[in-house]
Amino acid sequence: MRKVKNKKKNTQADTNLTKIKEGGVKTTIIDYDETHYHEKVAENVQECFAYSESESVTWINVDGVQDPQLVKNLGMFFRLHPLLQDDIMNTDHRPKVDFYENNIFLVTRMLSFRQDIKQIETEQVCFVLGESYLLSFQEDKEGDVFDAVRLQLRSKPKGKLRNMGESYLFYVLLDTIVTSYVNVMEEIQEELEELEEKIMNEESIQQPTKKLYDLKRQLVLVRKAVRPLLDATSQLLKEEGKFLDSTNFYMRDLRDRISQVSEGVEIAIDTCKSLLDLHLNLTSKKTNDVMKVLTVMSAIFLPLSFIAGVYGMNFENMPELKIKSAYFYTQYGMAFIAVGLLGWFKLKKWI
Amino acid sequence: MRKVKNKKKNTQADTNLTKIKEGGVKTTIIDYDETHYHEKVAENVQECFAYSESESVTWINVDGVQDPQLVKNLGMFFRLHPLLQDDIMNTDHRPKVDFYENNIFLVTRMLSFRQDIKQIETEQVCFVLGESYLLSFQEDKEGDVFDAVRLQLRSKPKGKLRNMGESYLFYVLLDTIVTSYVNVMEEIQEELEELEEKIMNEESIQQPTKKLYDLKRQLVLVRKAVRPLLDATSQLLKEEGKFLDSTNFYMRDLRDRISQVSEGVEIAIDTCKSLLDLHLNLTSKKTNDVMKVLTVMSAIFLPLSFIAGVYGMNFENMPELKIKSAYFYTQYGMAFIAVGLLGWFKLKKWI
Amino acid sequence: MRKVKNKKKNTQADTNLTKIKEGGVKTTIIDYDETHYHEKVAENVQECFAYSESESVTWINVDGVQDPQLVKNLGMFFRLHPLLQDDIMNTDHRPKVDFYENNIFLVTRMLSFRQDIKQIETEQVCFVLGESYLLSFQEDKEGDVFDAVRLQLRSKPKGKLRNMGESYLFYVLLDTIVTSYVNVMEEIQEELEELEEKIMNEESIQQPTKKLYDLKRQLVLVRKAVRPLLDATSQLLKEEGKFLDSTNFYMRDLRDRISQVSEGVEIAIDTCKSLLDLHLNLTSKKTNDVMKVLTVMSAIFLPLSFIAGVYGMNFENMPELKIKSAYFYTQYGMAFIAVGLLGWFKLKKWI
Amino acid sequence: MRKVKNKKKNTQADTNLTKIKEGGVKTTIIDYDETHYHEKVAENVQECFAYSESESVTWINVDGVQDPQLVKNLGMFFRLHPLLQDDIMNTDHRPKVDFYENNIFLVTRMLSFRQDIKQIETEQVCFVLGESYLLSFQEDKEGDVFDAVRLQLRSKPKGKLRNMGESYLFYVLLDTIVTSYVNVMEEIQEELEELEEKIMNEESIQQPTKKLYDLKRQLVLVRKAVRPLLDATSQLLKEEGKFLDSTNFYMRDLRDRISQVSEGVEIAIDTCKSLLDLHLNLTSKKTNDVMKVLTVMSAIFLPLSFIAGVYGMNFENMPELKIKSAYFYTQYGMAFIAVGLLGWFKLKKWI
Amino acid sequence: MRKVKNKKKNTQADTNLTKIKEGGVKTTIIDYDETHYHEKVAENVQECFAYSESESVTWINVDGVQDPQLVKNLGMFFRLHPLLQDDIMNTDHRPKVDFYENNIFLVTRMLSFRQDIKQIETEQVCFVLGESYLLSFQEDKEGDVFDAVRLQLRSKPKGKLRNMGESYLFYVLLDTIVTSYVNVMEEIQEELEELEEKIMNEESIQQPTKKLYDLKRQLVLVRKAVRPLLDATSQLLKEEGKFLDSTNFYMRDLRDRISQVSEGVEIAIDTCKSLLDLHLNLTSKKTNDVMKVLTVMSAIFLPLSFIAGVYGMNFENMPELKIKSAYFYTQYGMAFIAVGLLGWFKLKKWI
Repeated sequence: MRKVKNKKKNTQADTNLTKIKEGGVKTTIIDYDETHYHEKVAENVQECFAYSESESVTWINVDGVQDPQLVKNLGMFFRLHPLLQDDIMNTDHRPKVDFYENNIFLVTRMLSFRQDIKQIETEQVCFVLGESYLLSFQEDKEGDVFDAVRLQLRSKPKGKLRNMGESYLFYVLLDTIVTSYVNVMEEIQEELEELEEKIMNEESIQQPTKKLYDLKRQLVLVRKAVRPLLDATSQLLKEEGKFLDSTNFYMRDLRDRISQVSEGVEIAIDTCKSLLDLHLNLTSKKTNDVMKVLTVMSAIFLPLSFIAGVYGMNFENMPELKIKSAYFYTQYGMAFIAVGLLGWFKLKKWI
Repeated sequence: MRKVKNKKKNTQADTNLTKIKEGGVKTTIIDYDETHYHEKVAENVQECFAYSESESVTWINVDGVQDPQLVKNLGMFFRLHPLLQDDIMNTDHRPKVDFYENNIFLVTRMLSFRQDIKQIETEQVCFVLGESYLLSFQEDKEGDVFDAVRLQLRSKPKGKLRNMGESYLFYVLLDTIVTSYVNVMEEIQEELEELEEKIMNEESIQQPTKKLYDLKRQLVLVRKAVRPLLDATSQLLKEEGKFLDSTNFYMRDLRDRISQVSEGVEIAIDTCKSLLDLHLNLTSKKTNDVMKVLTVMSAIFLPLSFIAGVYGMNFENMPELKIKSAYFYTQYGMAFIAVGLLGWFKLKKWI
Repeated sequence: MRKVKNKKKNTQADTNLTKIKEGGVKTTIIDYDETHYHEKVAENVQECFAYSESESVTWINVDGVQDPQLVKNLGMFFRLHPLLQDDIMNTDHRPKVDFYENNIFLVTRMLSFRQDIKQIETEQVCFVLGESYLLSFQEDKEGDVFDAVRLQLRSKPKGKLRNMGESYLFYVLLDTIVTSYVNVMEEIQEELEELEEKIMNEESIQQPTKKLYDLKRQLVLVRKAVRPLLDATSQLLKEEGKFLDSTNFYMRDLRDRISQVSEGVEIAIDTCKSLLDLHLNLTSKKTNDVMKVLTVMSAIFLPLSFIAGVYGMNFENMPELKIKSAYFYTQYGMAFIAVGLLGWFKLKKWI
Repeated sequence: MRKVKNKKKNTQADTNLTKIKEGGVKTTIIDYDETHYHEKVAENVQECFAYSESESVTWINVDGVQDPQLVKNLGMFFRLHPLLQDDIMNTDHRPKVDFYENNIFLVTRMLSFRQDIKQIETEQVCFVLGESYLLSFQEDKEGDVFDAVRLQLRSKPKGKLRNMGESYLFYVLLDTIVTSYVNVMEEIQEELEELEEKIMNEESIQQPTKKLYDLKRQLVLVRKAVRPLLDATSQLLKEEGKFLDSTNFYMRDLRDRISQVSEGVEIAIDTCKSLLDLHLNLTSKKTNDVMKVLTVMSAIFLPLSFIAGVYGMNFENMPELKIKSAYFYTQYGMAFIAVGLLGWFKLKKWI
Repeated sequence: MRKVKNKKKNTQADTNLTKIKEGGVKTTIIDYDETHYHEKVAENVQECFAYSESESVTWINVDGVQDPQLVKNLGMFFRLHPLLQDDIMNTDHRPKVDFYENNIFLVTRMLSFRQDIKQIETEQVCFVLGESYLLSFQEDKEGDVFDAVRLQLRSKPKGKLRNMGESYLFYVLLDTIVTSYVNVMEEIQEELEELEEKIMNEESIQQPTKKLYDLKRQLVLVRKAVRPLLDATSQLLKEEGKFLDSTNFYMRDLRDRISQVSEGVEIAIDTCKSLLDLHLNLTSKKTNDVMKVLTVMSAIFLPLSFIAGVYGMNFENMPELKIKSAYFYTQYGMAFIAVGLLGWFKLKKWI
């Protein structure tokens, strides 16, 4: 079951938080432009500030958002609106974009499909895009999907990524997230195809309906991440602010990809429904077949057994019993009835 | 069953009401600004008027709206439109926002889930937001969900709530109401998850379909409260009047929360439908299984019984009966038929 | 079955009608302002014209529209467009509003629920709102839902109704019609609740599906009246003409009421569908239960009867028959088989 | 099955057509104004041109569009766009309106219901409305639905039709087509009502589901003609060109009629679905009833037959057989079992 | 199963591709205007450039897009945006249109129906329309649907195609693609009609539900190609750029054709669903019929067999057995019971 766990946000509470930075939170600073590239893991948040003042692009990535003080400090330095700070720490948001005076705030969800439990796992990723800086916040501490981007930044000084500023970096990171949707959809569709083939061949599958139901649930989860992101991207495209002009074509391309995923999700959900309907039809067809066998068997043997029963009665005066060939005539009669009924069922196309 | 009980409103009737203020109605006045805070329970409505003339924010909360004279007096003093007064007293309104010349009128519904009867209870809460005052009207007299807000007002003189004026207070109260939706949705989703698990495990639940039907009804009730409120909030955001400018970001955030709840409701309703379909599929699967057992049993024993019947007949001339080992041959024949039929059913994957 | 009986209107035919005013048509003239009130039943249509020239509000109500000459005469005097005249006489219109140069034309449907046949009856009511006059045309001659309004006009010289002009009168009459929808919806919802309870308790109702189907048909009829009226009211609100400015707030309130009814209709239709689904689920559940009883009975008694049949055979050489306690052993064996099968069914949760 | 037979149009092919005018095509010219009226069947298309130059309204009606040369000649004279000419000859278009520089082109479909085969037949009718001329093209040569209009033109020199120009003629012809929809809908709804009554009374109808399916197909055909025409009419109303200003009110009225038909179609389609659902519910209810009878019969007679079987065994030592009243006790026992089971089924409300 | 295989595009990777032009890619250059026509198969991409500088229309068609270097070279010469180049090589795009500064980029899908496997095959076709040039890229190397267009270009120097520039050529090629949709839809509809007839006549078809399911899948594929193309065409029409003005009427006509196909797809999908429902209804009707036969047989023979069983008991004291005509009375009684039950079933309309 999907759960809309939006715990009451402490928007109106002045959060005099005393908790000190947890060890689990990891902050990575990357500062680069065409000519230089600097990367370090920050020990404390103040280290970040030094870089952001330069003209070069500063990308601060925070893994784990359990440290309100860190977010608060960053927020103070980059002048992030209190609501934006709350949104970063509340990891149950649906994807959305908010335009603040001096930055753009985007909430997205990264998806991954765990093969072992056939379940989608989802993680919130937020971005704050400002002038010459990009902040990214990942809910989960383990693993890092952005490593590939880092590698590219590091190794290709002549690449677009190094030369096109923070909004291109923003686009590339978003693209990474959309790729995660594509991958998840491929896994789900493989599952779906497998199920479909089994249902079509009427292989004795273990509870196909439950599996279908489960797949549909996973798809609803994907839709929940994709659909609002599509809206958000459209809003990004409409809002022709200073940050995004240079990457307009790229963002448009991204929106096309998202809408392709979104269409794929709808089709897959529809396929689930169709397969369930197909399965119901096939089951009712099978029940009908079983019923026919039962009816044919009963219809033939009930009258025959009745006849046998009649001549098994113990009345003293039953003239037939004394007729010499009565037994054989009875057998012929029985055979005749059986053949007649079989013919009738044949005619009705039951057998 | 939901009931649209909009009793004919007495819009065109001049209400010369003679009923005097009921004891059940409780009016609380809170007057505050950055520097002072005053709270009292008003004995009569005239006490309210003294406060409202000051520059400080005046919040008048009325519990119970059975006293038309009270509403009329307040209406006269704050120049509330007659229709607005009618709307306050009619507790079956769907949520809506009305923009009057000198105030904004918002109707919402507070929800709560009663665990014992597994039913949602709903209560109308109206707000009138004007310059430096906020009126709130609660249908129900018992309990008070706004106590937390009062506590905050009282205890945190430096808090945002004390410093940001009546529209922020308005936002905080609305937020309290939205939180009630979130809580109700969590309870419902827990119920739904429980049902889902039981259906999936085919545990013998008591009437799962009825429970699903009931849950769906509750969800429709939630939707009835949430969806129009979402529209109303969007209208509030569009209407960039004097009252709401300072809390624009907060209202936007609120709308995001409401739309998240609304999405959750839709998904939950869809889940109910899917579960009902799943249950129908599983039931028809089970019927099929039961049918198979019946058919296999009948198909095996009907012919065998028939054979036994034949040799139970009392014809005088039945040569087989005299053959010495006929009984045993018959038994072998019966066993052969039974095994053959079992093999055939095995082949058909019925057993 | 709903019937879209829009007989070909004689728009292009010059209607040289010679039929004289039927006795069944009743025309009532009410002329009032703040200071005077005059009411009379008109003998012929010319009487109406005298009043309309004054500055006071003239309300002409026509019960029964079978008299084309009357409509034509009124049309000539008030300069009604020929199409408008056709529309008045064609009583199968869906609700709509038309804005003509010097008046507004509104078609609505009044609803009533006949308890005896559990059917909704519907009657067309048209309004022509012009400067200082209001014409209303009712399809049906019997009864008059507008009596309450007349009473109020007569008895309350200081009331809003007397002082706020023709557009307020228009609003009050429309409100009367909307109240008829609310009443009908309440009756239907009571029926629905009763059915729901019976289905939920699996009481043996007479054909619940047919009753549900019938209720849904009634609801579609209500929707057919309500939905276009909602559109028409929205158009009225958008069209800020000279006639409606003073009652803008009232019309908005009316639209809210209509949209509440409309929502109620949708929910009720959806409930019908859900109940039908629930009933199908319950029926298939019951079939499954019946099947289980049949299968358990057959599975137990078919083998037992077979055994009895075997020892009822008349072979001469059946050694078992001669064993002394064979009969009792057989009984024990039968009991053992019965208990074993019962245990197996218990295990399968069939009993 | 509906067939979208849009054969590849020869838009890019220069059609040097050599085929001469077929005898089957019939061209009628009517030229009229307030004072004169002239009607003739044209031998060749050139006859048409003489009339069109006058100020009076020229209506050229072509029955049968198999003659490309005719269309080409007309097209040349009235300066019709090549695509427009193609569209006239392609009789599988969905209804649409195209606004060309000097004329308006409207494609509609005329419907008729053939009672014998219970099938809707459809015929394309195109209009070209230009200044002081109207061209109409009918796919079918037989019959002529426009005869009534011609009669009116001929016989009523003072009628609106003669005085209001080509756009009013256009409106009247369209009105004729919409009337054909209304008539077809009435026939279908009668069929539907009949089916409904039979299903409700559970009369043994021949394959009600197939009939419903068939009706739904017919309704989809109607929808295919009505829905795009509604769009086209709305476009006509928006496009306030020189041709249509004088008949604006009439076109608006026409659109209202079309939207009424369209609504009727939707309701009828929905009724088909509901009836199918109802029928499925009733069938499953009946299956349940049949099952109950079977189960009750089996549950009573299986144990009784078993008891009879037991005492029919031929064991030598069966003490009960020798007891004097054993037979009667057995009968009592059997009666007791039967009554007990009947009581139990009564309790379960199966009988 | 549809598969959304959008492999991660290498948008951010600088593609230093070293792969040399594959032999499988075939590039055809056609250069024409009113007076001349030149056609050749290019050996390398540089040959193309010579033509494009002239004022005449240059159409470069590339069959097979596996050669990134070719696309890159063309892209450099015609100044195609890097994203556009990526899109050409990624053959899993949904149809779309992109407006670049100096050209229009359209992605479409060509469809074909393979009769042998009853499957739709789909191939991506891209167009780049610039000033006096048109580039087209086909995914598949075999066959060429554009041959007919080439033939027309070659053989009709006075034809429209030669005189109306690159945008008319663009229209004609698009028209070819839309024609492929129409053809596919006709094949599918023929299949559907055949299935429908068989289901209606209850012919014993092999798994009609699976065939329906399969057809629906094919239709979803068609929809996936048609719907976005409809959007793209609408966008093309709105964007009144320099390239398309002269063919505006033609593009509008094309959009009409696409929307007709799109409507056909929706109706066909709906028909699939209706047929599945019909089939379910018919199956459940049949099950009911089978059940009735079983129940009638059982209900008649179970009591009769019971009676026979009773008189087959071996009690010593069974007075009836000694009555002389008891056997015959018993037979009469049995016949009476059988007739009575048959009458009762007749009454219930089961037989």
